[in-house]
Amino acid sequence: MNNIVIIGFQSAGLTAAAAAHIHDRRAEVTVVERRSYATYHPCGLPYAISGDVSDIHELVEDEPKMLGVDVRLGKEAKYIDTKAKNVSIQDLKTKSEEKISYDSLILATGGLALKPSIPGVDLKNVFTLRTVEDGKDIIASLAKSKRAVVVGAGPIGVEVASALKKKGLETTIVELLPNILPGMLDSDMAATVSEHLNKAEIAVKYGQPVQEIRGKDKVKSVILKDEEISTDLVILSVGVRPDVELAKKIGLEVGSTGMIAVDDHLRTSAADVYAAGDCAETRCFITKNPIRSQLATTAIRMGKVAGKNVVGGDEIFPGVLNTVVCSAFGLEVAATGLTSRIAKDVGIDVAAGRFRTLSKPRYFPGAELLVVKLVADKSNNKIIGGQIIGDGATERTNVLALAITKGVTVHEMSQMEYSYAPPFNDCIEPVVVAADALLRRM
Amino acid sequence: MNNIVIIGFQSAGLTAAAAAHIHDRRAEVTVVERRSYATYHPCGLPYAISGDVSDIHELVEDEPKMLGVDVRLGKEAKYIDTKAKNVSIQDLKTKSEEKISYDSLILATGGLALKPSIPGVDLKNVFTLRTVEDGKDIIASLAKSKRAVVVGAGPIGVEVASALKKKGLETTIVELLPNILPGMLDSDMAATVSEHLNKAEIAVKYGQPVQEIRGKDKVKSVILKDEEISTDLVILSVGVRPDVELAKKIGLEVGSTGMIAVDDHLRTSAADVYAAGDCAETRCFITKNPIRSQLATTAIRMGKVAGKNVVGGDEIFPGVLNTVVCSAFGLEVAATGLTSRIAKDVGIDVAAGRFRTLSKPRYFPGAELLVVKLVADKSNNKIIGGQIIGDGATERTNVLALAITKGVTVHEMSQMEYSYAPPFNDCIEPVVVAADALLRRM
Repeated sequence: MNNIVIIGFQSAGLTAAAAAHIHDRRAEVTVVERRSYATYHPCGLPYAISGDVSDIHELVEDEPKMLGVDVRLGKEAKYIDTKAKNVSIQDLKTKSEEKISYDSLILATGGLALKPSIPGVDLKNVFTLRTVEDGKDIIASLAKSKRAVVVGAGPIGVEVASALKKKGLETTIVELLPNILPGMLDSDMAATVSEHLNKAEIAVKYGQPVQEIRGKDKVKSVILKDEEISTDLVILSVGVRPDVELAKKIGLEVGSTGMIAVDDHLRTSAADVYAAGDCAETRCFITKNPIRSQLATTAIRMGKVAGKNVVGGDEIFPGVLNTVVCSAFGLEVAATGLTSRIAKDVGIDVAAGRFRTLSKPRYFPGAELLVVKLVADKSNNKIIGGQIIGDGATERTNVLALAITKGVTVHEMSQMEYSYAPPFNDCIEPVVVAADALLRRM
Repeated sequence: MNNIVIIGFQSAGLTAAAAAHIHDRRAEVTVVERRSYATYHPCGLPYAISGDVSDIHELVEDEPKMLGVDVRLGKEAKYIDTKAKNVSIQDLKTKSEEKISYDSLILATGGLALKPSIPGVDLKNVFTLRTVEDGKDIIASLAKSKRAVVVGAGPIGVEVASALKKKGLETTIVELLPNILPGMLDSDMAATVSEHLNKAEIAVKYGQPVQEIRGKDKVKSVILKDEEISTDLVILSVGVRPDVELAKKIGLEVGSTGMIAVDDHLRTSAADVYAAGDCAETRCFITKNPIRSQLATTAIRMGKVAGKNVVGGDEIFPGVLNTVVCSAFGLEVAATGLTSRIAKDVGIDVAAGRFRTLSKPRYFPGAELLVVKLVADKSNNKIIGGQIIGDGATERTNVLALAITKGVTVHEMSQMEYSYAPPFNDCIEPVVVAADALLRRM
């Protein structure tokens, strides 16, 4: 019998548990989770704030409905003895402790909202958004708030700003880097998104470090270099800190990203201990450099690999392109692979092609702006990145992610086969036209 | 100077003209077209009937706005002297003739609506749907019609039936083959679409040859084996007959499909004469067998290859997967590659995996049915077909088309990277889950 212990029951832990059970029906799979409820959907939080999801509790899966998996909620893993191969867990209510032995173990401890070291971050009405509790606190504050500042214009920052605007708050997004969605978009594409947000009356300030959050007890304003923005609440959306406390305690190797170092099978530096999800380091599929991914989709993909490997699988995690989509006040914005800027930073000589068109034929009702940008490596003519704004960006980016994974050249992309019907798209696929445009620059 | 003559100005001819001009700015490109107007959008016709497109003339591009291309409308190519390398063209109004010499020529003569040899097809109110004129005739007949029968449940048949229902007509689709959308879907997937059409009160009859269309002067009913369906109009949507009249007249080789035979560079059997679009034979990318494609997207892709090759390019047309999408009374239905049934017919040992889920997280408003079916070749574990019903089917099918083109295995598909945000999709990509399900059957 194979004893599998998984620490953490979010995207990675849940998927790993399911994968272990599917690939070895006789494996004894135990999951240890601090929370008193099973899983929740963090990516749904902005939509509980906006009211699209009417009750935040709908984001919570109360029942750990997993066949063949022993899910222990309200328990914290305090220590792992990697020689004796057991985990000490404590019941968070009764404080009683016990040891569970394992043959293989997966750390899926996830991450915590990063609180930047800005003066004033501990003032009242300064929030982060990671947990259901965070979401409830923000929702509770809305009734008495008229103005909001969101610090950080990553996907979650943009989505939560859109949600606050939808709730009627005067909303400002402040981003340190030279454009919004900086990990996803080059400045030219980001400008289109900023324009859309501005039209929705969401103020966007980029290239702006927050110097201080001011207030007495409760937040009053946010101080930028040359400006003070009055506000009733602040949401800090500046990233996720991997939860590596337990990993460090037991001496696991931590990588340059501050995350648990893993090999291509997701094995940590300790025998039979794996890591997956927001706590574990990943590599960029293109550069092979260690990076932080911390997407639900990456956690799911890693969980699947780790879960199969602990029951005798030989799965390799191929790395990530950080394929991601966000809704910028209803506008679908997606990206995969490297932006021109990031590619140049890592020394790749790139060419880029951009194409602006409509999402449907011009004669069809509901045709809206669609913009595609492709980035290619000039040394081998292969696609290394894509940024898409508009209807179908999600799945179009998936096409590009597959293309990058398979080493598709710009020329092959320009020959891509696609489907067409007027209610859904135009007869000329914008990804193909962007490839045609790029081809002429290579 | 390179003299290029293109016969036909629809998807293939237009794209070929543009490609020739882009790749050789000094080429003299002349297009000869019978119609008095430039191009139109045949795929938009069902939506002019439904009223989604308010005026059918919006489907017509009156002005041949092509820089550097000499478009001659209202002219018919009567003969091609492939030795002297010139085309005799006649002005359809004045009847005057002239000869244009060419260095290379592209036949893009397209196709005509197929009229099956059923008794009664020439009765009044029996229509085909291919041209703008057809569309106008059908629209004109609607005011006095309460019931309609559409013969043929291909994509256009299904879309036109949906349009007629939307206009309030009691509508029946009759299909000869054992399920609707027979080139696209296996019976299991087609059943889901039939169910949706039935809910919309569109009657669907499959496995039913039409024996006769009855009426005096005007159509009164359609006779099936055991049934007579009363109707005020009939739309025949049983396929496209390639227009190969001119090609045959000049002795070009015609393939087993009845279309102009071409090699992988789209060269016909006559020197410097190419063919592209609905008149030209294509090959199935998977089986390499000659097939009829006759999709606008195929015509565009062929036009691009032919247009580049006539100005010195060395492009290969890789064949088609017949990637296609249609709207079945609003339901997005798409497919690529081979169905299980068609694969078995050509002797491939297949495995298939199907996954039914929702288009968005269950907690998000607007979540609807999404079904994915993947078909793989058991001999090499590669994906050879996909059928998708629901939101995003169009672009998801494009992912699968690329996967097939690149020889992606089911295992690779199960590792596919994708993007996720609750307004657009669920955190688990259905294509990936379908691949997981299929993997366990291989």
